[in-house]
Amino acid sequence: MTVPKIALVMGDAAGVGIELAAKLLARQDEIAEAAVLVIGDPGVLRRGAREAGVEVDPPAVSQPADAAFEPGRPELLDLGHDGAGAIPQGVASPESGGFAMRNFGAALDLAKAGVVDAICFTPFNKQALKLAGNPYLDEIHWAADRLGFKGRCSEYNLLDGLWNCRVTSHIPLAEVASALTKDEIVESILDADRTIRRAGTARPRLAVAGLNPHAGEGGLFGREEIDVIAPAVEEAKRRQVAAEGPFPADTVWLRAKRGDFDAVVTMYHDQGQIALKLLGFTRGVTILGGMPVPICTPAHGTAYDIVGQGEADPGATIAAFRTAVRMAKGALAAAE
Amino acid sequence: MTVPKIALVMGDAAGVGIELAAKLLARQDEIAEAAVLVIGDPGVLRRGAREAGVEVDPPAVSQPADAAFEPGRPELLDLGHDGAGAIPQGVASPESGGFAMRNFGAALDLAKAGVVDAICFTPFNKQALKLAGNPYLDEIHWAADRLGFKGRCSEYNLLDGLWNCRVTSHIPLAEVASALTKDEIVESILDADRTIRRAGTARPRLAVAGLNPHAGEGGLFGREEIDVIAPAVEEAKRRQVAAEGPFPADTVWLRAKRGDFDAVVTMYHDQGQIALKLLGFTRGVTILGGMPVPICTPAHGTAYDIVGQGEADPGATIAAFRTAVRMAKGALAAAE
Repeated sequence: MTVPKIALVMGDAAGVGIELAAKLLARQDEIAEAAVLVIGDPGVLRRGAREAGVEVDPPAVSQPADAAFEPGRPELLDLGHDGAGAIPQGVASPESGGFAMRNFGAALDLAKAGVVDAICFTPFNKQALKLAGNPYLDEIHWAADRLGFKGRCSEYNLLDGLWNCRVTSHIPLAEVASALTKDEIVESILDADRTIRRAGTARPRLAVAGLNPHAGEGGLFGREEIDVIAPAVEEAKRRQVAAEGPFPADTVWLRAKRGDFDAVVTMYHDQGQIALKLLGFTRGVTILGGMPVPICTPAHGTAYDIVGQGEADPGATIAAFRTAVRMAKGALAAAE
Repeated sequence: MTVPKIALVMGDAAGVGIELAAKLLARQDEIAEAAVLVIGDPGVLRRGAREAGVEVDPPAVSQPADAAFEPGRPELLDLGHDGAGAIPQGVASPESGGFAMRNFGAALDLAKAGVVDAICFTPFNKQALKLAGNPYLDEIHWAADRLGFKGRCSEYNLLDGLWNCRVTSHIPLAEVASALTKDEIVESILDADRTIRRAGTARPRLAVAGLNPHAGEGGLFGREEIDVIAPAVEEAKRRQVAAEGPFPADTVWLRAKRGDFDAVVTMYHDQGQIALKLLGFTRGVTILGGMPVPICTPAHGTAYDIVGQGEADPGATIAAFRTAVRMAKGALAAAE
């Protein structure tokens, strides 16, 4: 079986991402089945290892072609960050954001060139990225742009084995109903099914949420369930996807939490995010799916308030890395 | 201090409401400061008491004028339900729904006549009510109609001390944005403030949710926060209400759960209901507010699956009753 090559991007240099990268690399059980190329700076990683209290110091290479990509033996692509060791911790700066920006950009270039199969990055800080001149609103547009990818891509959320994906995302609520077409919903369901299969679930059970209160209560509070969503679910079923619904949005999460489904396909941003955040999504994983390579990151932020103390919980980073590895394996297997 | 008179309506005769009424009446600590008039049937209540394993058999009166309304000494208004003792349990029937319907109707008439100050009812069953010929979609329209009340009234939810109220409710999601006017939001905030004060919180801290993803992210994903919601919050503040916001809907619930607020004012149905149901709202209380008398009920249903076993948890019923008593006291104090 082909070993997946994973770019592990060191995120914001002022946050806990440095420490989390070190903690992940120290977990031999997690990295055993992947060839990891850390992208960043050896001095900064050593600082992270000290903070984390772990022994991690992968051999550095100055260009990707020098990397051996062996399973369980991480290497570090040294981008030659000037003065990275002196970046102040716990505060957003152009330097801390610029560090993350260069690392992620390099990883995307490696992905585009086919050198790595997936990317996992530790947290970025929006403000620091802005200070560093990053023009993108979110990572998905950034990644698609740098990869030159024009197809459908979307953000997935994964928490304790439960996935969320959404048909619409960062648009005004007033525009949601008109953005929901049968085709759009079908494509979202099919994408979700494919993405979750890639991540290792053989036949994902997908719950599709309704749009209106009580999923419209038989048309009394809106007809999108009847006119658009139910037909989309039927179409997805015809295409062999285990989709069900539409279900009322306020109870579908209780069923999903109970284990009835592997994923909830939501119609708009907050329909999923209200639930996920209450379920403890900072422990979860954000996945940018649909692009040539999967990109995974912990859902939590840079946690400037606890930086440098060695107390950052690596759970979400490990889950993000594990998801990247699984999805890369899934993609490699599908290509074979 | 005037003792509040509470009508305790026996709900669906086939469900756990009978048992819950008995369990509540057995709690001398809860009923000590209220004059309770149970509305239903003595035989059915005795059955509930047997199931609950409690000794409860309040003296029956055949008309309200015969009730003494003394604190801590409940009485029962016997509506002369024919054959109520033979209503089959655990299944929705015209009889089980009709029992609840007559009891609630009688309570509303007593409220309209000024005989009782608040109503608490144990769970109804929608299907049974329909079988019994009830034409109303929800209790709020039913109550307003029977009371002849034409003013603003709305449903509140209360869970572990945290309130939810909503500016719009059972309307299609596509119509939410256009239904949100500054005046409507201001009135909802003021109503919420008044209702929660009546229930005993001196200066409720109200969080007002935004409408769009990330509360619009500064206008990028919608302008309602800037154009309508923020001005409404400012207006409410000018009127001495401790309102804050608008906040992103997906994180405001985390803050509310942590105790930062007494209430969340939501813009649409599922913005609150997704959160409340995940927080365990079946343990909570639904309040119909704004009408001449407060009406409170446990948020859970008739639980036909566990009827007659004595295992129904009276927590939500006790909380509903306690809220009715507090709100009635608040209204009586305000009137003095």
